[in-house]
Amino acid sequence: MFDIIALDADDTLWHNEPLYTKTQEKFCQLLKPYHDLEWIQKRLNETEIRNLEIFGYGVKGFILSMIETAIELSEGRISGREIQEIINLGRQMLQAPIELIEHVKETIPRLSRLYPLMLITKGDLFDQETKIARSGLADCFKHVEIVSEKTTEVYRAILKKYRFDPKRFLMVGNSLKSDILPVLAIGGQAVFIKYPTTWAHEAVDETEVRRAGYFEIDHIGEIFELLENLQN
Amino acid sequence: MFDIIALDADDTLWHNEPLYTKTQEKFCQLLKPYHDLEWIQKRLNETEIRNLEIFGYGVKGFILSMIETAIELSEGRISGREIQEIINLGRQMLQAPIELIEHVKETIPRLSRLYPLMLITKGDLFDQETKIARSGLADCFKHVEIVSEKTTEVYRAILKKYRFDPKRFLMVGNSLKSDILPVLAIGGQAVFIKYPTTWAHEAVDETEVRRAGYFEIDHIGEIFELLENLQN
Repeated sequence: MFDIIALDADDTLWHNEPLYTKTQEKFCQLLKPYHDLEWIQKRLNETEIRNLEIFGYGVKGFILSMIETAIELSEGRISGREIQEIINLGRQMLQAPIELIEHVKETIPRLSRLYPLMLITKGDLFDQETKIARSGLADCFKHVEIVSEKTTEVYRAILKKYRFDPKRFLMVGNSLKSDILPVLAIGGQAVFIKYPTTWAHEAVDETEVRRAGYFEIDHIGEIFELLENLQN
Repeated sequence: MFDIIALDADDTLWHNEPLYTKTQEKFCQLLKPYHDLEWIQKRLNETEIRNLEIFGYGVKGFILSMIETAIELSEGRISGREIQEIINLGRQMLQAPIELIEHVKETIPRLSRLYPLMLITKGDLFDQETKIARSGLADCFKHVEIVSEKTTEVYRAILKKYRFDPKRFLMVGNSLKSDILPVLAIGGQAVFIKYPTTWAHEAVDETEVRRAGYFEIDHIGEIFELLENLQN
């Protein structure tokens, strides 16, 4: 049915968003003397989005955005020691143990025996590589593509590179914006697995895309049933 | 003779090291009130090398290393404003215009009509992608590989992925450590083009590797003569 099944990594295979959320909470605590939490959160998010075009996605850019926000919101009064604390928060993110999402550990090796698998993830090259290595799943993936953005052009380029027919390409992920819509746009098929929290920047209006026609399952373990249904 | 000619980017196609050098000079000026220049330089370099295993190569990790060094050497007395200045130095690096090295502009398009070309570069994914796009040379390259390290394993994996025979693979670059030695180690051929300055971390003992057998040319424009000689 499919030449390849591609999977997203962050918040599809392992938990990622909670790492950002927890770090942001600690960051807000650090800046509490200067502003209220909601305002800090809002300004951090704005800085992050603004910096995406210079820093790209990933933890290192996020650390730099936290530092900039801290300097701005404290009007330069933030101390060197506090900035070092922010960098340390980022270091902890980069070295955090990989926590696989439920059903992933059993499902991915089993799925890899049925179909060749490809990992498609965006973010810092080095960070993503070490996460894949530490996940214990690296051997399940025939191909790994770490990209700076997940646009239709990027998916089209990947399919061209490996000479995959879009009709026989299935992408699985938790982001409608990055994993589902661009794949449908190039004629591929997509499976959406909702993750409890989504970064605001990745959010899209779900009702609007539902008619676009993608599959949805509650967890990765349900993919076998979906594949069986598709085959019949 | 070759199925593919691969080229390094930073300091092979365009100037890169001078950007780091100039930024370091400005950084040293900023920290002059706290320490003498040589000591600042030494400590920054140590921080950079130590951070490579967490941040990987690239400008964003370099900015974070500058900030850490500034906090450490000022014993936390560095101000928020000065740290913002450091981040701005990094931003300037990320947005600096691409300055092609002499002969590159004429040579690469001409070479791309004789052989399929591949770009192999290490660093921040996002930064390297925008540099390739801004260089005006993107169309000359059939393949682009941005990697986090240039080891024998990485070259072996690239060759396997594209099914290239190492004997018919030629790599061109300015780093003996990253572009020449690992390629020779897997049975490929390599052309060294010396760049006036090399980051200490990339330096190797040249006399020791000379017997390893690689080609050396003074500038990229000489590659046609080299290829002709090899054919005869």
